[in-house]
Amino acid sequence: MALRLPLGFRAGAVRAGIKPSGKPDLALLASGLPASWAYAATQNRAAAPSVHRGRRLYAGGGLLRAVVVNAGNANCATGSRGVLDDERMARAAALRLGLPVEEVLTASTGVIGVPLPVERIEEALPRLDLTPFADAFAEAILTTDLRVKTAEAQVGGARIVGVAKGSGMIHPRMATMLAFLVTDAALPQEALRAGFGRVVDRTFNQVTVDGDTSTNDLAVLLANGAHGEVPLSAFWEALEEVARELARMIARDGEGATKLMVVRVLGAATEEEARWAARAVAASPLWKSALYGNDPNWGRILAALGNSGARFDPLKTRIVLQGILLYDGEALPFDREAASQAMRGEEVEVLVDLRQGEAQGEAFGCDLTEGYVRINALYTT
Amino acid sequence: MALRLPLGFRAGAVRAGIKPSGKPDLALLASGLPASWAYAATQNRAAAPSVHRGRRLYAGGGLLRAVVVNAGNANCATGSRGVLDDERMARAAALRLGLPVEEVLTASTGVIGVPLPVERIEEALPRLDLTPFADAFAEAILTTDLRVKTAEAQVGGARIVGVAKGSGMIHPRMATMLAFLVTDAALPQEALRAGFGRVVDRTFNQVTVDGDTSTNDLAVLLANGAHGEVPLSAFWEALEEVARELARMIARDGEGATKLMVVRVLGAATEEEARWAARAVAASPLWKSALYGNDPNWGRILAALGNSGARFDPLKTRIVLQGILLYDGEALPFDREAASQAMRGEEVEVLVDLRQGEAQGEAFGCDLTEGYVRINALYTT
Repeated sequence: MALRLPLGFRAGAVRAGIKPSGKPDLALLASGLPASWAYAATQNRAAAPSVHRGRRLYAGGGLLRAVVVNAGNANCATGSRGVLDDERMARAAALRLGLPVEEVLTASTGVIGVPLPVERIEEALPRLDLTPFADAFAEAILTTDLRVKTAEAQVGGARIVGVAKGSGMIHPRMATMLAFLVTDAALPQEALRAGFGRVVDRTFNQVTVDGDTSTNDLAVLLANGAHGEVPLSAFWEALEEVARELARMIARDGEGATKLMVVRVLGAATEEEARWAARAVAASPLWKSALYGNDPNWGRILAALGNSGARFDPLKTRIVLQGILLYDGEALPFDREAASQAMRGEEVEVLVDLRQGEAQGEAFGCDLTEGYVRINALYTT
Repeated sequence: MALRLPLGFRAGAVRAGIKPSGKPDLALLASGLPASWAYAATQNRAAAPSVHRGRRLYAGGGLLRAVVVNAGNANCATGSRGVLDDERMARAAALRLGLPVEEVLTASTGVIGVPLPVERIEEALPRLDLTPFADAFAEAILTTDLRVKTAEAQVGGARIVGVAKGSGMIHPRMATMLAFLVTDAALPQEALRAGFGRVVDRTFNQVTVDGDTSTNDLAVLLANGAHGEVPLSAFWEALEEVARELARMIARDGEGATKLMVVRVLGAATEEEARWAARAVAASPLWKSALYGNDPNWGRILAALGNSGARFDPLKTRIVLQGILLYDGEALPFDREAASQAMRGEEVEVLVDLRQGEAQGEAFGCDLTEGYVRINALYTT
């Protein structure tokens, strides 16, 4: 099922020989019109050259025309050679598209500490075909992901399409995976940059798979204006919807995961605290293990809330698991077998009411399984 | 091999019927002389009644004569009944020893959210025999632990004995397990309290098993003065040695662990940053999984350092794994098979030189295995 890009965008992918599997691993996204853009990247201090270069471009304030992505090699901790290789990748993409190199953003994902085989990228880019569809791009950027992650929305006749990857080394400190969001709505650079952080904070930054924040991750939004202007508040709402759907997909596809966990926190003192609390539950290895075993062990949820940094009183808090009230200031009697049964399935909802205020937040996680350990014990990824 | 307590201390344990296994689960430690004491407890906001009570006693400033511990039930999130049950446990121990109740500290560990069967504790305490040895006490306080954890040291003729438990829900936010340290050295209350935090920060707070901070944990030091005065600096050195040994034992006995990980960070800007950096490596699920698989995947160490909060420059940093230099500002060629071979065994050392300053720190962790997931998926603990 082909996913058409918004007006004026084209994308494609090719096999460059970076992934050991031999699958497509080099992807290119281009806009016919110069696009205003917003950008969020990892806060990891071991950030890769592609992240440093992206920050420089972003600070420069210019418009963007293309993003080139390789999957299979993070080009991180590769010394000064890594910086040159990243620039060479940008230049090869600029050459392919006939653009100035400052209009091309780079992104890399994969193993850390191995030199990037940049000649293969230079050799492959001329072979890369661009189409009006997102599918080949979405497939090529995956690494340990099992599923393609795309989402779309309409707003005032304009369209938003989002593509993401992410499965391990996923933990909120900004945008902890790769996400590419494109729209043909017309939005000035300034408005775009002002609103993007809030969307990222509410969606991508609320995903956690394993508590490890990657060195390479970024979320970028390109608006090329091909469709024209749209109501701004409706745009942000639609964008958040797309970002949330991608965030859910990343969590569901967490390494080794058998199910998606959605944590909703109500009644927090502030929205930030609601997010902290939700994230703490989604990140707790003990609760994630219980989730895997369909064990309604709510004490672990309570312990995670107690460490979240959010204002919290165990005597006021309510915990509802899959619609079953388990805790209301104290342990309630409940049918353990029925609660366990309710935890089976592809998605489990934890609802927490902190009763400290009016703010809400959510987080997206997954269960912790033997599969996660096996994937990460036995393969250098 | 019996471990004799310092002069003036006695301890013992009994079966109260709290642990489903039927093993001894109620332990008592008593000092013939009133002991000055220092105390560190969990910062989890869902802290158990025993922690709140301990803080109150500590703030009161009085001396301590006994500690009563039950294992198998955390008596946490048990509402107002839990507060009364904790007080009843203290009163039963005070009665057994003929002491005022304010001279008895309580501690509980085990499942969260289940009412404490306090009548069983009241019934069992009169049957509990005290001896000059730590062994029965050390055995009874265990839960999912596989091994007893004791350590000792001598200082100026006085002795220090430490006993701890801890295996899961272990992550530094203060003292994240139970640790009982006793000495017959004479130390004024004030000096004891002033110095204890530093020892806890360097040892127990640097242990991590799973990133989950427990609701019930505490470390307590009792000095009854039976032996007399000792040089203060030598005392702190000896105490730190005992605490470090217990910290190592807790990490090694982490749920499902097959090996101990010791992370030493040199060249940090401050001692606190050295500890952050070491702890971040010890806590990384990705690196812990690689450790389990004997995969010298140092990129995950670098990524963890980048997120630790410590000042860090990947171009300056050195990583040495089991004595093999893997990274020195950039990837170095190394024999992957030999490095993997070196990771086999009971203890693996990660040495990091940040080259930012002169400060050092260490952390204690373990590998992440399918066993951890199984223990926590399948049993309500």
